[in-house]
Amino acid sequence: MQCPIIVTIDVVLLTLTPSGMQVALQRRVKEPFAGVSALPGGYVRPELDANTHETAVRVLRAKTGIASAHLEQLVSESSPDRDPRGWSLSVVYLALVPLDKLMAQGSKGLELCSADALPALAFDHAQLIAKALERLRNKAAYSTLPLGLMPDTFTLAQLQKTYEQVMGVTLNKSTFRARMAPLILEPGQAAPAHPALYPTGDMQDGVHRPARLFRKSMVLNIFESPLK
Amino acid sequence: MQCPIIVTIDVVLLTLTPSGMQVALQRRVKEPFAGVSALPGGYVRPELDANTHETAVRVLRAKTGIASAHLEQLVSESSPDRDPRGWSLSVVYLALVPLDKLMAQGSKGLELCSADALPALAFDHAQLIAKALERLRNKAAYSTLPLGLMPDTFTLAQLQKTYEQVMGVTLNKSTFRARMAPLILEPGQAAPAHPALYPTGDMQDGVHRPARLFRKSMVLNIFESPLK
Repeated sequence: MQCPIIVTIDVVLLTLTPSGMQVALQRRVKEPFAGVSALPGGYVRPELDANTHETAVRVLRAKTGIASAHLEQLVSESSPDRDPRGWSLSVVYLALVPLDKLMAQGSKGLELCSADALPALAFDHAQLIAKALERLRNKAAYSTLPLGLMPDTFTLAQLQKTYEQVMGVTLNKSTFRARMAPLILEPGQAAPAHPALYPTGDMQDGVHRPARLFRKSMVLNIFESPLK
Repeated sequence: MQCPIIVTIDVVLLTLTPSGMQVALQRRVKEPFAGVSALPGGYVRPELDANTHETAVRVLRAKTGIASAHLEQLVSESSPDRDPRGWSLSVVYLALVPLDKLMAQGSKGLELCSADALPALAFDHAQLIAKALERLRNKAAYSTLPLGLMPDTFTLAQLQKTYEQVMGVTLNKSTFRARMAPLILEPGQAAPAHPALYPTGDMQDGVHRPARLFRKSMVLNIFESPLK
């Protein structure tokens, strides 16, 4: 009775490069849309996956080699037309990966494309990317979601730059630092309710004043008012 | 290949009563969980539904008689265990209906239960309700989502009361009015970018000073900073 429904996941995998936000795409080998760029995705397999989040993790690993990323459910899309094979439902995930981690995987056939200049894409994938970018932009103002794009260690100036690129605005430095301050777990300090930034104890070398290097813990939804 | 997946929708239908937020439940007639209270829900039927949103509209109408409600996708839940019939995926919707509209439908076997004192529920429906309430509370601070709970006409004082009940806080009257002011389309005024409140021209009778009555247009995501 339920057989006609094709159930898949798709992952909008975003990373931030010096030239801006990029989406990871792969050329499809098989029909439909053979040879056309598409998001990494695949069938939900009940015999393998405990839920669709696990499907996304499994597919990401198999198709891109990426074993860890910030991964959150974005939306489910369904229609009789989005997949020429039949009535299909896709649970769409947003994944954020720092560029160094993505590069470390080797390419596995991934192409990074600027989110502003996408090629023709298979299925409804252009719309899914637009939704993912909107979610990231909106949520950045209220959360530490942009941490998902940061490398292992980073300075507060680098983090601010990432927020600015994601949100498409310029942020005031002291406002930004005041907002991040409660998230920093200083050495010897009792852990705050939600630490998100750990000082590594190292400093960044550079032409300017040395800056403290931080590690991230996790993405949080904690801001009581938006950043901007 | 995809056949083992059961694909359903569930609707967390919320309404606001004088005694607080209530969830619409129905006793299940069939197994599994026969006789147990559950959210209105049903199978996605590709031959009838152009997408899962349409499934939610169809199921709401058939099972509750409700033909219009604010309806938005909440999340998709999946697991091998949530439904004893097999591996299942449910696209969960949040529906908001004003109490007078819900009452006008006749009961259709709906029971309204206080969100704070739910009975034992079928499947994972208690968790789905918790997620819906969290979404409504969080989104209220940034949007006009609580308008979905208002009757056809209402005063700003009544709207503020609804925001307060949804958010669980007391709001400052002048702050609230300043926030709503740009959403009001005064007669003769050029339409703002996003009108949400139309003065009816009528006043509410009452023991206190007469107050203007408004109609709503739609739920908006527009606040640049949270209400509280």
